[in-house]
Amino acid sequence: MIILGIDPGLATMGYGAINAVHGNFSVLDYGVVETPKEQTLPQRLLTLEDGVKELVETFKPDNIAIEELFFSKNITTGIPVAEARGVILLTAVKSLGDEVYEYTPNQIKQAITGYGGADKMQMQHMVQALLRLKSVPRPDDAADALAVALCHAQTSRLSTQFRIQ
Amino acid sequence: MIILGIDPGLATMGYGAINAVHGNFSVLDYGVVETPKEQTLPQRLLTLEDGVKELVETFKPDNIAIEELFFSKNITTGIPVAEARGVILLTAVKSLGDEVYEYTPNQIKQAITGYGGADKMQMQHMVQALLRLKSVPRPDDAADALAVALCHAQTSRLSTQFRIQ
Repeated sequence: MIILGIDPGLATMGYGAINAVHGNFSVLDYGVVETPKEQTLPQRLLTLEDGVKELVETFKPDNIAIEELFFSKNITTGIPVAEARGVILLTAVKSLGDEVYEYTPNQIKQAITGYGGADKMQMQHMVQALLRLKSVPRPDDAADALAVALCHAQTSRLSTQFRIQ
Repeated sequence: MIILGIDPGLATMGYGAINAVHGNFSVLDYGVVETPKEQTLPQRLLTLEDGVKELVETFKPDNIAIEELFFSKNITTGIPVAEARGVILLTAVKSLGDEVYEYTPNQIKQAITGYGGADKMQMQHMVQALLRLKSVPRPDDAADALAVALCHAQTSRLSTQFRIQ
């Protein structure tokens, strides 16, 4: 099963495509889609929409997993990020329908490390180990996107195995 | 010039279509697009996208004016509203390109009442007066959408008159 993970953002959207077969995971690709600050918000939203469409065409994922936003403070900078996430989520759903899944940061940490309070470095090393990468994936947004893809792989495997869904 | 004003929201998106000719304003229609709470976020975003497309087809606006979000607190409830606004803005821009304009709540108050600190009731009575309506437009989200359409009408008229843009 091919899973496309997305870490939503306005300036930088991380993506990570993995292949998950019976609990074995391999990386297809990972990276970021960037939108220049000089562009207007509508232009940047269009770039993100195109980015998601291109990723779907390239990797033909069976499922897309998208991280949910969490802001403890600083709502002002959070608004454009949430606006971008709305566009990313809509574009994903228009491409794959019901095969789009959302996970909170805590769910992702829990699925990857077994511990909801894991820090960024622990997460990145677990992603590296699970995917048998030679180094920690860079940039951070791409590593986060691989983490949400892995979270979905683990969660959906367990759901099938134990029929908890 | 036909202007479609939009007050973005997830549960309720207000709209107001006006015709502005040489500083004279008349209402074409106003109302709300609602998305049921029982639906998933992606379903609600799709409903809002369809809503904007339908409004554009119905009123064939020359310009669309969309209110910007402002949250002084409560970021948690603000995230889905911002996600909805991203979808609304993207859909508007895909329909009308550069003819989409954004205004902050303060800009709207300033344009309608000449006073950035105006309260909701003052705003609604000014909207009623400017559009020669028999009563205050209801619901509030529709009145807000008419206000942003009027703000754009006033602002773009002055821009042309005095060539300040």
